[in-house]
Amino acid sequence: MKTAVVAIGGNAILMAGEEATLENQMANLRRTCAYLARMIKNGYDMVLTHGNGPQVGNVLLQNELCRYDVPAMPLEVCVAESQGQMGYMIQQAMTEAVRSEGLAKVVTCVLTRVIVDSNDPAFDCPTKPIGPYYSEEEAIELRETKGWTLVEDLRRGGYRRVVPSPEPVAIVEKSAIRRLVFGGEFQPEIVIAAGGGGIPVLVENGVYKGVEAVVDKDLAACVLACDIQEKLLILLTDVDYVYLNYGTENAIPLHNPTTEDLERFESEGHFPPGTMGPKIKAAVRFLRHGGERVIITSPGLLENALDGRAGTQIIR
Amino acid sequence: MKTAVVAIGGNAILMAGEEATLENQMANLRRTCAYLARMIKNGYDMVLTHGNGPQVGNVLLQNELCRYDVPAMPLEVCVAESQGQMGYMIQQAMTEAVRSEGLAKVVTCVLTRVIVDSNDPAFDCPTKPIGPYYSEEEAIELRETKGWTLVEDLRRGGYRRVVPSPEPVAIVEKSAIRRLVFGGEFQPEIVIAAGGGGIPVLVENGVYKGVEAVVDKDLAACVLACDIQEKLLILLTDVDYVYLNYGTENAIPLHNPTTEDLERFESEGHFPPGTMGPKIKAAVRFLRHGGERVIITSPGLLENALDGRAGTQIIR
Repeated sequence: MKTAVVAIGGNAILMAGEEATLENQMANLRRTCAYLARMIKNGYDMVLTHGNGPQVGNVLLQNELCRYDVPAMPLEVCVAESQGQMGYMIQQAMTEAVRSEGLAKVVTCVLTRVIVDSNDPAFDCPTKPIGPYYSEEEAIELRETKGWTLVEDLRRGGYRRVVPSPEPVAIVEKSAIRRLVFGGEFQPEIVIAAGGGGIPVLVENGVYKGVEAVVDKDLAACVLACDIQEKLLILLTDVDYVYLNYGTENAIPLHNPTTEDLERFESEGHFPPGTMGPKIKAAVRFLRHGGERVIITSPGLLENALDGRAGTQIIR
Repeated sequence: MKTAVVAIGGNAILMAGEEATLENQMANLRRTCAYLARMIKNGYDMVLTHGNGPQVGNVLLQNELCRYDVPAMPLEVCVAESQGQMGYMIQQAMTEAVRSEGLAKVVTCVLTRVIVDSNDPAFDCPTKPIGPYYSEEEAIELRETKGWTLVEDLRRGGYRRVVPSPEPVAIVEKSAIRRLVFGGEFQPEIVIAAGGGGIPVLVENGVYKGVEAVVDKDLAACVLACDIQEKLLILLTDVDYVYLNYGTENAIPLHNPTTEDLERFESEGHFPPGTMGPKIKAAVRFLRHGGERVIITSPGLLENALDGRAGTQIIR
């Protein structure tokens, strides 16, 4: 039995500048899911995880704008809402795609909480911008009334809330996810899990307490893959390879780097924190914690990448 | 192994007139979940399903009010969002409650689609009011631009959208839910599923197409229970018993009615369509399709009801 944890980026669902309609998101998803369905046709089962940046931003914006009519929910509840919204869209698009390949798999979405550590230094230093832009007056009020951290965005000329982005420690629903994808006597399901990096919770006296933070989806995918003892982690993005000197005329695609190579390149500043950085961190961590193989590539190269003929391949 | 499908009403989560804050909803849920945890302590595993009336209404309202800033999602996507939001709240409250009973069960929420039939007569005759109130001018515009059906609510003096409430036919994720709650070699999970009656979808050429409708949560609970071959269905509400002449001085609680009794009383008009009617219909249908026992009572009487000492008990 071949299985993988596959992470798809926000661009696979909503491209920059595109209007966040259901139609646009479904059209993008259908394109991406066609490649994933091909992989399933080729004998793989999968746990699929996804980013939620634009979508949770919109849920936050709705909560903000309507706060006098509907009580605003804290960030972790907005993440849960985005998992519902996006999980549904993805399961619909995936069902269509696997059906086109002649398969009748059930695509199941498990609402997923991710445990983070209250001692994580990220809680002292929120860095992840999220939600709408505010005026200086609004920013001052939000700091006072809600205790938010807001920073000025000089490019856009407004203030924006920043929230902590702590490291994921463990997936609460790991046993359920494992049971669904490793079928045993049953037909395995295609499982959608840990959407948007998961709903962040702290553990306090054996129960879970939601916390206003966001978890990087690639790092969450790594923890999920480790927790369910998966061996193959696939991080899909909008570039075909991991590059050195990305975006310059000296850009060099990496085909088979070692984890040591990647750590050296990272320390040399080749992988920006907001884009390739978390993927490299997730890849190295996965291979040091029981994982066997990581592929970083674009959806269009997935089939060739699985055969070892494309994409950045990192082996333990 | 003892298991049950348990449906909790909207009142268990948000009481009429209460502000829909996270705190209020968690406080209500903690009360209800304490009774459910007691049942789990007494040896039951469960699939928990829930209403979503006020919550999906608020998501719709947010979508409406912010429609110029964030593209409004159709109703079925709002239902999916409410499953995410409420599934998270319920799993958090249930985890606390089972922990208080000294148990360490994982509470897992499965996003759930429910198949409805495009030939269901409900699609020709939308009756379920949903979302905010509109002025006459707005109502006319919405009829023209969106094709909605809006009806005047004379009590409140405004117009409201009505949507179809078709009969649930089958639960798409039934195999996943069954696998999680009937553990086999694994420890079973407490599963939250079919929230708000499920995300309604039509089947077209083997794929699912979302449809703007809402499904009654008690009928969805019945179909869910049948689909996973559950034998015990528990419908919790804010009254202790099913009553004849409810709300009058001649009110008579029903202790052990037969399905034939219930059908006769229903034809005599004892069970209003919006409240007890769907529960009675769900109970009768469940017992005619493989179910063995239905309990209709309030959360506070659950423990006694399971011992047969309280609540309305209906046996096949």
